[in-house]
Amino acid sequence: MQRAAALVRRGCSPRTPGPWGRSQSSAAAEASAVLKVRPERSPRERILTLESMNPQVKAVEYAVRGPIVLKAGEIELELQRGIKKPFTEVIRANIGDAQAMGQQPITFLRQVMALCTYPNLLNSPSFPEDAKKRARRILQACGGNSLGSYSASQGVNCIREDVAAYITRRDGGVPADPDNIYLTTGASDGISTILKILVSGGGKSRTGVMIPIPQYPLYSAVISELDAIQVNYYLDEENCWALNVNELRRAVREAKDHCDPKVLCIINPGNPTGQVQSRKCIEDVIHFAWEEKLFLLADEVYQDNVYSPDCRFHSFKKVLYEMGPEYSSNVELASFHSTSKGYMGECGYRGGYMEVINLHPEIKGQLVKLLSVRLCPPVSGQAAMDIVVNPPVPGEESFEQFSREKESVLGNLAKKAKLTEDLFNQVPGIHCNPLQGAMYAFPRIFIPAKAVEAAQAHKMAPDMFYCMKLLEETGICVVPGSGFGQREGTYHFRMTILPPVEKLKTVLQKVKDFHIKFLEKYA
Amino acid sequence: MQRAAALVRRGCSPRTPGPWGRSQSSAAAEASAVLKVRPERSPRERILTLESMNPQVKAVEYAVRGPIVLKAGEIELELQRGIKKPFTEVIRANIGDAQAMGQQPITFLRQVMALCTYPNLLNSPSFPEDAKKRARRILQACGGNSLGSYSASQGVNCIREDVAAYITRRDGGVPADPDNIYLTTGASDGISTILKILVSGGGKSRTGVMIPIPQYPLYSAVISELDAIQVNYYLDEENCWALNVNELRRAVREAKDHCDPKVLCIINPGNPTGQVQSRKCIEDVIHFAWEEKLFLLADEVYQDNVYSPDCRFHSFKKVLYEMGPEYSSNVELASFHSTSKGYMGECGYRGGYMEVINLHPEIKGQLVKLLSVRLCPPVSGQAAMDIVVNPPVPGEESFEQFSREKESVLGNLAKKAKLTEDLFNQVPGIHCNPLQGAMYAFPRIFIPAKAVEAAQAHKMAPDMFYCMKLLEETGICVVPGSGFGQREGTYHFRMTILPPVEKLKTVLQKVKDFHIKFLEKYA
Repeated sequence: MQRAAALVRRGCSPRTPGPWGRSQSSAAAEASAVLKVRPERSPRERILTLESMNPQVKAVEYAVRGPIVLKAGEIELELQRGIKKPFTEVIRANIGDAQAMGQQPITFLRQVMALCTYPNLLNSPSFPEDAKKRARRILQACGGNSLGSYSASQGVNCIREDVAAYITRRDGGVPADPDNIYLTTGASDGISTILKILVSGGGKSRTGVMIPIPQYPLYSAVISELDAIQVNYYLDEENCWALNVNELRRAVREAKDHCDPKVLCIINPGNPTGQVQSRKCIEDVIHFAWEEKLFLLADEVYQDNVYSPDCRFHSFKKVLYEMGPEYSSNVELASFHSTSKGYMGECGYRGGYMEVINLHPEIKGQLVKLLSVRLCPPVSGQAAMDIVVNPPVPGEESFEQFSREKESVLGNLAKKAKLTEDLFNQVPGIHCNPLQGAMYAFPRIFIPAKAVEAAQAHKMAPDMFYCMKLLEETGICVVPGSGFGQREGTYHFRMTILPPVEKLKTVLQKVKDFHIKFLEKYA
Repeated sequence: MQRAAALVRRGCSPRTPGPWGRSQSSAAAEASAVLKVRPERSPRERILTLESMNPQVKAVEYAVRGPIVLKAGEIELELQRGIKKPFTEVIRANIGDAQAMGQQPITFLRQVMALCTYPNLLNSPSFPEDAKKRARRILQACGGNSLGSYSASQGVNCIREDVAAYITRRDGGVPADPDNIYLTTGASDGISTILKILVSGGGKSRTGVMIPIPQYPLYSAVISELDAIQVNYYLDEENCWALNVNELRRAVREAKDHCDPKVLCIINPGNPTGQVQSRKCIEDVIHFAWEEKLFLLADEVYQDNVYSPDCRFHSFKKVLYEMGPEYSSNVELASFHSTSKGYMGECGYRGGYMEVINLHPEIKGQLVKLLSVRLCPPVSGQAAMDIVVNPPVPGEESFEQFSREKESVLGNLAKKAKLTEDLFNQVPGIHCNPLQGAMYAFPRIFIPAKAVEAAQAHKMAPDMFYCMKLLEETGICVVPGSGFGQREGTYHFRMTILPPVEKLKTVLQKVKDFHIKFLEKYA
């Protein structure tokens, strides 16, 4: 934070001309009578420059929407302008955005949302009664019976009750308390809010935040913003990206030399790595957190996305309670869910929730205070979250269609997970662990020494170089492993499996052809 | 940031029993076979406590949803439980939440939103064609033609174009560039994002952020979160809360002793103070920012809320351009708008935009990077913003109804602004400046010395004491002036004028009766 030269504001010539140079309305000219118009000069020094800006923000990286995605946008514009490419469209496989990939919204969810948005529709015979019932319940809990009012900063009461009931069902009866539920603007908002509260200290007592490597780069970005210390623990690629507690021990031991490790982040099912943690592994992690006095963050947004028949999702909350009161009344845990993933894929609504366990009552007050500064999460996103946790049940009018739609999405995802794993593993120089869950493949790619040299000549990470070439030659946009972190000398990329089956097959074939050519070129 | 004792984690006994104590499911008991259940003990020390938490977050205050609002919630619960009070309902006049106060949504806006939410409705004859046209345009610009996809982090392209076209119309032809428009999660998000980028330095070169006193407490809260320095400039209460540039000069001069003043925040029309700045005043402010090399933040969310016949809204952007190229190609400005205020009052959708002027191209890149970490603003809020800036025009089917609804809301607000000012000024010991704009009264109240003593005995600010008494005796919830800042020795409260006319009259009468009784009691 110390910047001795902060007062020195270095000038930079902007690359674009001042907009005023383009057109000057006569109304404007007229009204400027009070001050005489001075001769036009080139812009003077800017106040806000790369040199003067917040250095912690400058240090933030976020690969999922980083340079490769900007390049993809440029290529799309070139295609629109008719510039010839070896492909006709850009396929944005960089992000888990189901509906952008053609997945249809769950009908029931959108019906309830439309009813909430425009309550006149409650009189329409073309909407089912169970959807109307849900909409009425949500609206009655909203100020002025409207999605347009602010909600409580913690979220609409009845939606928090529905979330708590969902968690209790999911966890086989382990109780959940609506007071421990905070509705959020997507899971990202919850994660960054709780981290914001947790981070403190300076020098050697700065807060260390343990994250998996590979990680979802929200974590590293928020850690950088908050000027906390990122403490890496490596997932075991040779063992299907499993989390090994010995590696946690190594990481925390080494971290204690230079910071105060206080938080342990877990992503289960894994992003970008797709592993689903065993119950035993979760128990070991909780025991470790208990021993080491770590605050647990469990990112469980892919809890509905488990495909391997041998795997099951276990929530940290449930395992914590099953371990007995020594743990369940001591270990501090925040877990996260979202409307964006699962089978509904409602990313745009920015709905989510956080459940906190054993949070000190005074900290709960601090949390509500902090949330209240941003007033409330989007109420439409809260409504979407309600439908996710409170879908039609057997006997209700919409149940059959809802179940069909849900099974179709999840069944297809399971098929695509297997297909992707199988196809990647047929390519020489690509190894792909089983996609047990989530919605990404994170294959390891062999990059020949000559390609590594070429990348260095372009001042690029070797896998960024690889992904740029893939984009330029095939139109397929994936994210280099370096954006998630990986063991040194290994290279990966993350690709979503969300495209429809036939399109996904084409994508995989194209990656295969590209990879073989790439190996030949740089052999 | 230096906290020598950060590693010392002080324990606190939680006030609530661990939830595990309440019920233990048999499934849970069964599954805990792996680890032996240890005897239950009282919880050990918490990791996250008031002592160990982020001190900057602890320092945050946000009065609009602070202790008085928590108390209001408690009283509501007591009323529900049948506890007798001298009133039958709590009136939440603490926040500008139009629809919670019974204002009906603008029909056209909700029709377009419903069509976007559930596109099957595009075939329904009960929706007007102009609403369908808007909905199709928005959907075509969304990934997968769905509000459920992530948008670009800067916002949906066509909505940014519509915002730019709106600004150009509003400002009499001064051009706006869609590249300078960033859609946000309400205005609060835009304001805190740009402040986050602006803040840097340590010690005497920490960033100073100038804010009006009284202010909207988002500003002080974000400044505290970011560990920046709050630099107060006082609005002139004797002169209808006008902004005086000499006071800006005083504030910046004094601030330079201990920080680097880099940002000047303006709220126009004023919140909580309701003044509308004259064109001359805006010109003076811009000249001052230019001289002092300050980055301007113009919070213009009440731009549609101007009631005094003598006042007009002038945007900072327009005045900046009218002042000629010396200013318009140099002064860095970010201005903010929102779906929450105006005549639509769609607070719950969390829609907003920020327009930046003269932002360095490299900083634009940094801004998009930072926004991309949170993926995108809620797409439904973006759609709501689109309708706000692109409403029906003459000749379109919905124009007449839209205009009627808009005029009705704004006409009523103007009436209520005058009514509130007049009634408050009839009360001895209350003085209220004209409510030229926005949606609040911020009357000055006389608090007798005996009441000040009584407040001190309760360890409360005198106006907090006053507002608590008002709440307890009348059910009316307003926010003490100390939550916004005020000159020492003066006392105020903020009350929204949003209740329907008849209800507002009752509220004002109750405040009057309370105030007279209060003066008598503490005479």
